[in-house]
Amino acid sequence: MKALVYYDSKNAKIEDVSTPEVSKGTVKVKVKYAGICGTDLHEYLHKTYVTEDKMILGHEFTGEIVEVGEGVTKFRVGDRVAVEPIWGCGECAACKKGNYNTCVKMQSYGLHENGGFAEYVIVKENNLFALPDSLSYELAALVEPTAVVLHAIRNSSFKVGDRVAVFGAGPIGLLLSESLRAAGASKIFVVEVNEQRRELAKEMGADIVIDPTKEDAVKIIQELTNGGVDVSYDAAGVEATFNSALESVKPNGEFMVVSVFSKPVSYHPAGQLVTEKKITASLGYNNVFTERIDLLAKGSIKAAPVITSIISLDEIVEKGFEKLINDKSESKILVSPSK
Amino acid sequence: MKALVYYDSKNAKIEDVSTPEVSKGTVKVKVKYAGICGTDLHEYLHKTYVTEDKMILGHEFTGEIVEVGEGVTKFRVGDRVAVEPIWGCGECAACKKGNYNTCVKMQSYGLHENGGFAEYVIVKENNLFALPDSLSYELAALVEPTAVVLHAIRNSSFKVGDRVAVFGAGPIGLLLSESLRAAGASKIFVVEVNEQRRELAKEMGADIVIDPTKEDAVKIIQELTNGGVDVSYDAAGVEATFNSALESVKPNGEFMVVSVFSKPVSYHPAGQLVTEKKITASLGYNNVFTERIDLLAKGSIKAAPVITSIISLDEIVEKGFEKLINDKSESKILVSPSK
Ligand SMILES: [Zn+2]
Ligand SMILES: [Zn+2]
Ligand SMILES: [Zn+2]
Ligand SMILES: [Zn+2]
Repeated sequence: MKALVYYDSKNAKIEDVSTPEVSKGTVKVKVKYAGICGTDLHEYLHKTYVTEDKMILGHEFTGEIVEVGEGVTKFRVGDRVAVEPIWGCGECAACKKGNYNTCVKMQSYGLHENGGFAEYVIVKENNLFALPDSLSYELAALVEPTAVVLHAIRNSSFKVGDRVAVFGAGPIGLLLSESLRAAGASKIFVVEVNEQRRELAKEMGADIVIDPTKEDAVKIIQELTNGGVDVSYDAAGVEATFNSALESVKPNGEFMVVSVFSKPVSYHPAGQLVTEKKITASLGYNNVFTERIDLLAKGSIKAAPVITSIISLDEIVEKGFEKLINDKSESKILVSPSK
Repeated sequence: MKALVYYDSKNAKIEDVSTPEVSKGTVKVKVKYAGICGTDLHEYLHKTYVTEDKMILGHEFTGEIVEVGEGVTKFRVGDRVAVEPIWGCGECAACKKGNYNTCVKMQSYGLHENGGFAEYVIVKENNLFALPDSLSYELAALVEPTAVVLHAIRNSSFKVGDRVAVFGAGPIGLLLSESLRAAGASKIFVVEVNEQRRELAKEMGADIVIDPTKEDAVKIIQELTNGGVDVSYDAAGVEATFNSALESVKPNGEFMVVSVFSKPVSYHPAGQLVTEKKITASLGYNNVFTERIDLLAKGSIKAAPVITSIISLDEIVEKGFEKLINDKSESKILVSPSK
């Protein structure tokens, strides 16, 4: 079968590899779509999480079961499925509380075991979730990033009627804005430097979009909310957005980090102290795929606009990774290995 | 009367000033004790909050009412009182929710109106709290800092049975450690460089004291708690303690800033992200003086060891401010203007 084999930083190739075989408790999934995520780009640029010599990347994928291993009881050939890609050690304090997303030994398809940038992928039964007929495969490829943003919202102090600000309108920022709309935010600010991303934000929940290169985002947010939003989210991951997002929050409000920072930041705790703001962080999700599938299937969250391109597996490096790194007008690119 | 008049950084003098007069809704308090606080030292070194040309410092004071102004109904001459020194604008969103401690226009005796480093001080009736006979004036001078640490504990996610770490064993760190003991912490780590302060910490709640210049505090805490404490508190206020306190917390745990940082810190949000830790902050207190007086009066919190010296008003600069700045074996110094 064809697959994207990742060797090292900036070294990933489409190759013919042997099609993997099912074993006890696993199924073989024919991949329909696999989304390219910021984590994939980070790994492509700087080998960080992959420790094997070769790894098939891709953790946001969906497809059809074509073969079922011994002992699999809940799924059959022909089932349409989404895949929850992560799992914990099962033994640490975090895992025992169900928080396998913060397990220090957390693993994932596409980083620790072969993932979805391939024609076929082997998946453990426990990581499979049935798709309703009403949910297209395209939207099913968005179940994973939607689970990420909903975990962030639910993990924060956000409540229906709150005012919020999202810094950065990449795929996570856009899905966050749209999901905050679905969660009943009364006013949603999105701060983003790229014009096309600001346009997308307007389609995906944002009430007010701000270009921070032209306007003072903190000042506008503070003025229009009479002192700050209830919760702000940093989906950009740099020092400037960190400090602006913190300053945009009202006294006793919350600023949540949802992006992977590649460098330390400098900030002044004294400003945080006198306003008793909270700085929180949210990573991944746990135990929620069924509910996220339902939200997308019934259309409560309108995630489709985030998909800006669908490409073939052969095109993944040039029209996927390199394009996303260089062209900020792109948002979520889906790879279709079956095309 | 005699008072400490503060003019500018490093410029504060004991002077004879005219004794202040009561006005409508205020009383005159003869000061028994006034504690010297980190805020006083900060203001003495770097004029920050005081905007008047002259100000009598001191916000942690207690005494006896010697004169009552028109319209005062709840207090009489001879009443023993503690004074809550802060108040808000009464009109902002924070004030309307009762959070006058995070009001951006918050004011305080000793910074915005004359305070307790004097023989007499004028106090609004609303800021007075009656002392039970069982509470000595010495302990009553500790009601204010005790309110600070209890606000921090109650503002954090701490619950009875939790394991905690306190970084820094100055007066606030010590009262925090002792109050966490009173709140039912199952294991209390205190990290402090000064030997005398570590000894005091053992008297005030600490189960394990660590000298971070000799041992790796984070490693010890992580090992003895199998992955980190539930909540850590930074009562030291420097970059090293900020990062150590954050690292000492378990995944999904909380790190709370309770100290005034004088410089920005550098820290890596990615480490926070993968463990979903919270960084919170707690400042002052609101609406709690009666309950704090009760806790000290019934001996639930044994605060006395934090008092390391009692000095006269004449000695305040040399044996108070300068001593505390230069000698870390001192903790809370009380000034007795009536001596
Ligand atoms: Zn992803
Ligand atoms: Zn685990
Ligand atoms: Zn104080
Ligand atoms: Zn106010």
